[in-house]
Amino acid sequence: MPNSSDCPFCKKLAAGAKLPDAEVVWQFPHSVAILGQWQYYQGHCVLVARTHATELFNLVEVERHAYLDEMCQLARAIAAVFKPHKMNYELLGNQVPHLHWHLFPRSVDDPQRLQAVWLAIDRAERDEGERRRLSGDPLRREATAKKLRDKLREISP
Amino acid sequence: MPNSSDCPFCKKLAAGAKLPDAEVVWQFPHSVAILGQWQYYQGHCVLVARTHATELFNLVEVERHAYLDEMCQLARAIAAVFKPHKMNYELLGNQVPHLHWHLFPRSVDDPQRLQAVWLAIDRAERDEGERRRLSGDPLRREATAKKLRDKLREISP
Repeated sequence: MPNSSDCPFCKKLAAGAKLPDAEVVWQFPHSVAILGQWQYYQGHCVLVARTHATELFNLVEVERHAYLDEMCQLARAIAAVFKPHKMNYELLGNQVPHLHWHLFPRSVDDPQRLQAVWLAIDRAERDEGERRRLSGDPLRREATAKKLRDKLREISP
Repeated sequence: MPNSSDCPFCKKLAAGAKLPDAEVVWQFPHSVAILGQWQYYQGHCVLVARTHATELFNLVEVERHAYLDEMCQLARAIAAVFKPHKMNYELLGNQVPHLHWHLFPRSVDDPQRLQAVWLAIDRAERDEGERRRLSGDPLRREATAKKLRDKLREISP
């Protein structure tokens, strides 16, 4: 499937080396891990497939396996660094269909840890204070990305 | 990791052949596909791992690969039968940590198709009318499970 000229993830990947270090966590062979917006879930990453496809079963098998292995490796690194009580793995694509995993570490200290993150994120999209709370401090983003990179370097096969 | 005697999914899997046909969609080698509660998303399935583990990276590699292959095969069947405009794949475990995928086909006719399903499900958990609307008609559950089984039989390797 060709890249779509209208796809925001295709555009982001095309920017390649120009993406800031604070944003790109890891360049995998079949995907790119980008630090997610919602750092209240510290370590939130978005893992964008290099191929423009919209369903997992549209990838050829070898590529699908590799993409899912990369997703699991990123989840392992996030969990090792931030010690969540549970990881949440979500591939939705309701707004941007290009394959991308959201990996959200859930903290035992989150009073809404029994719910999916999307209830809080929906509030954040309508409320500036909640948006600031869930987005976290921009100064911590570089440090968060670096911690994840250090762990990925350590556990890379 | 041993099965947990307190785990509702371990108890469900232990019931094995006693589970009703309208509920069990498919017995895979490493997981069991159960028809989900929220059939407004027609074809919603929950794919429960046979092993009691709480993170993907806690499964041994060969089992993790098999479980993810089964998840993709189930997603392919759901998509082939119900022709969603997008599949949503979610492994959360915030309430029941035993590994289970929620596969939600999203319809182009859903006015909230741009959002994660959890906003509607959260309303349904607090509102009986919304719960009925999202749970759908129990009579259709058997037919939905049968359609999925027929497709899985057709596409099984």
